[in-house]
Amino acid sequence: MDPNDGFRELGRQECLRLMAKVPVGRIVYTCQALPAVLPVNFSLDGDGTVLLCTSAVSELVRAIDGAVVAFEADDVDAVRQSGWSVVVTGSASVVTDPAEHERLARTGPVSWVPASQEVFIRIEPELVTGREVVGGRSLYGVDLTA
Amino acid sequence: MDPNDGFRELGRQECLRLMAKVPVGRIVYTCQALPAVLPVNFSLDGDGTVLLCTSAVSELVRAIDGAVVAFEADDVDAVRQSGWSVVVTGSASVVTDPAEHERLARTGPVSWVPASQEVFIRIEPELVTGREVVGGRSLYGVDLTA
Repeated sequence: MDPNDGFRELGRQECLRLMAKVPVGRIVYTCQALPAVLPVNFSLDGDGTVLLCTSAVSELVRAIDGAVVAFEADDVDAVRQSGWSVVVTGSASVVTDPAEHERLARTGPVSWVPASQEVFIRIEPELVTGREVVGGRSLYGVDLTA
Repeated sequence: MDPNDGFRELGRQECLRLMAKVPVGRIVYTCQALPAVLPVNFSLDGDGTVLLCTSAVSELVRAIDGAVVAFEADDVDAVRQSGWSVVVTGSASVVTDPAEHERLARTGPVSWVPASQEVFIRIEPELVTGREVVGGRSLYGVDLTA
């Protein structure tokens, strides 16, 4: 870590360990050519795949199925000006395999909304980046896409 | 509000009132053709303009100056499955007017990082959308870009 830049880059496993501590993250995608962001609850699969569960007819599914998205989770203490932020970037896809759907129905995330047609969305952990913010330093300049 | 969809759409003023309660949001932009997201502290100008303060040489400035970005703030209680999320979408630009820079140096956000060349970034509130999540319902389907 550069002692002057105020953050420490996190390794992939550390990123995933931190992500697993929080129930809600934010999915970042493009909608009508504009940047879009939506808080969602999630879980992590063994390999770091981000799993969402939502309605098959949701606008979210239509927007992200087959697209490259970013999924961000963080825990920032504004008083101490410290915390961490992790981003998983990769392709999002609706789980269509019946056996995989069944597995996720048992082990995957539980949607907060009662949906008649629930589907699971996988976000492949193609890029996992994160930064820990050193107390009293800023999140500014933490390029999570680096 | 549709009693079945689990959220209530917020008006512009209510969105801005809620945003003003939290010190940190997340800027959503595109970097190297990929979705990018970065937590940052911020303040709101009178008209709802989102103000950031960062280093003139930061990667963030290079990525967003002149671009349309989204800035999201939220407060979600995962236990109660309730909360709110607000997104301001608009053009981001570095403040270059000396008088405006001086005004923001007095009244704008304070960067968490000691930067020798601080600049202020304005995000125009061209689109301000938000949703309040009803307890026990999900954030899923809350299309903040609608």
